[in-house]
Amino acid sequence: MSNLFEEIQPVVYKNGRIFFLDQTALPEETKWQEINSAEKCWDAIKRLVVRGAPAIGIAAAFGMLTASRAAPKGSFEEYCSHMKSAGEYLASARPTAVNLFWALKRVDRKILNSHGKPLSEMDAIVENEALAIQKEDEEICRAIGVHGQEIFSSILSSKSSFTVLTHCNAGSLATSKYGTALAPIYVAKERGLDVRVFADETRPLLQGSRLTAYELYKSGVDVTVITDSMAASVMGKGWIDACIVGCDRAAANGDAANKIGTYGLALLAKAHNIPFYVACPLSTIDLETKRGDDIKIEERDALEITEGMGKRTAPHGVKTYNPAFDVTPHELISGIITEKGLIRPSYAENLAYINI
Amino acid sequence: MSNLFEEIQPVVYKNGRIFFLDQTALPEETKWQEINSAEKCWDAIKRLVVRGAPAIGIAAAFGMLTASRAAPKGSFEEYCSHMKSAGEYLASARPTAVNLFWALKRVDRKILNSHGKPLSEMDAIVENEALAIQKEDEEICRAIGVHGQEIFSSILSSKSSFTVLTHCNAGSLATSKYGTALAPIYVAKERGLDVRVFADETRPLLQGSRLTAYELYKSGVDVTVITDSMAASVMGKGWIDACIVGCDRAAANGDAANKIGTYGLALLAKAHNIPFYVACPLSTIDLETKRGDDIKIEERDALEITEGMGKRTAPHGVKTYNPAFDVTPHELISGIITEKGLIRPSYAENLAYINI
Repeated sequence: MSNLFEEIQPVVYKNGRIFFLDQTALPEETKWQEINSAEKCWDAIKRLVVRGAPAIGIAAAFGMLTASRAAPKGSFEEYCSHMKSAGEYLASARPTAVNLFWALKRVDRKILNSHGKPLSEMDAIVENEALAIQKEDEEICRAIGVHGQEIFSSILSSKSSFTVLTHCNAGSLATSKYGTALAPIYVAKERGLDVRVFADETRPLLQGSRLTAYELYKSGVDVTVITDSMAASVMGKGWIDACIVGCDRAAANGDAANKIGTYGLALLAKAHNIPFYVACPLSTIDLETKRGDDIKIEERDALEITEGMGKRTAPHGVKTYNPAFDVTPHELISGIITEKGLIRPSYAENLAYINI
Repeated sequence: MSNLFEEIQPVVYKNGRIFFLDQTALPEETKWQEINSAEKCWDAIKRLVVRGAPAIGIAAAFGMLTASRAAPKGSFEEYCSHMKSAGEYLASARPTAVNLFWALKRVDRKILNSHGKPLSEMDAIVENEALAIQKEDEEICRAIGVHGQEIFSSILSSKSSFTVLTHCNAGSLATSKYGTALAPIYVAKERGLDVRVFADETRPLLQGSRLTAYELYKSGVDVTVITDSMAASVMGKGWIDACIVGCDRAAANGDAANKIGTYGLALLAKAHNIPFYVACPLSTIDLETKRGDDIKIEERDALEITEGMGKRTAPHGVKTYNPAFDVTPHELISGIITEKGLIRPSYAENLAYINI
């Protein structure tokens, strides 16, 4: 199934079947996993077969479709009870990305609003909701890409090209298309602008070198891979015009949780007077979370550090600390690029306003 | 030859034979390479079998011993010409570490000062010089460790333990014993203090997780491995009392070249008000190099990034940038710990003074 689907996309729905691109096997192998149960979906989210905040939301919505197909359809209450359990189960796969909860809630609401309809229609209702989430995500990412052009215009007034540093992967592989952090880059490329990218490899799981470099290189964007430890050097040389990163959850005050290393990158950008942008759909902004400190940070297995690439690279028995995310305080963020526009500080006011 | 030598040391001279511990095989394997020609020595330095500024100096001095043994001893001029070539050849293995040039110069001076002595004694003269360099390095590192206690005293006035963050490996494996950056930690441990270490894994070659964690863990020091991208998070949590790193070459103004990532770490330390120290012998301070900008930075093979752990982790054909070192400007350095004491700014004055 290596050439099953042409475009770079993490979740494919075809002839009623659900496939996740196995991102743990990239860039060397293009493998697809068929998802036909909530258990398989949970496992795929947990093991990062599918990852990236918007993609996890889409994946979970299709996970709910598998649950719906397996659900007893004797009574609405019975069906709802089954689906509620499935939703709670899928939500437990990863604690940080708010899109997971957002998508599950959306499917849940759709189900509750369908009370009274024949239960035989429920599968189709959930299917349509999952497809709608996926389709809307594509439109949202495109809009993020368009609004992101604003940050390039001032750079291009003084030079003919611009270079963006990004961390982790917030591209096509993390969404249904375009990505979030990479959307402005893809749109700039479509418009014939000379845009270049430095990609942090992003230890421990190397989403930068494995995924971001993969999709940009495949799309013909000029991309250079560096280790995370080289970002400061590259900034110091004056090679970077802006940083753009994705986000797994933003709080109401603009604090943004993203892949571990983002906070440090934001500090380095500030030290070099480089603007630092977060790109995300409004669904990633969680107004119920007041500040970054309130965001639960997932800690992952020590083996990701000690045997990150399948080879032992630290002594057996040594301690590790492996948080998957960190929180960048809003003071370090120059702007948040959303589908409704580029939001500038003060975030507490402007995020509340735009979400109405 | 796995248990050939008891202590952790990079260069061992035993019964007239020279062995380098193969640090590329650590932490999984303890392999020793016998060095019996200048070519083998060059190759070992180049491939990082032996690495760390002081250890490279020691290794090169023993490389000169192999050259001396192979040199024609018909006339002093002929011998000197051979040794001069050998010295230039060994100096070409790595361009950044000043100790390499310093040790080669020292052997060279010794040879020139031995003019008039029987040529049959030259091997023993070079041997003694190499052993002297090694022995002095041990004494120097011990002195660095003792002087380093000064930076802990203020911390220990308010709490019972202290935690140091370090980058790369500037420990026993990088010197003849004690190390430079790790010397204050080993001495503190000897004195019964509660010292803990966070070790950046240090991509691309993972000297932090492979070597620093290995030697600290083996020595019973409480050590936690993190990826380079986690340093900012750990600092933000208030877990780090001080950073101590080694140095490959310091300029007369105090700018310090060290493993890539050090500059970024210094910026992060500053942002968190954490003192940032460089530990190195005076031989690492190159008063002939005025500023950090004048230090030549070695760029290494792309494969270190794209196939760092023997497994492909970036798409084939993608561009990379792989500088082995960066330069931390003196403004970011709280002090330089040397065998003659802790040097504080202004470095331009104080380094010139202490080197007299």
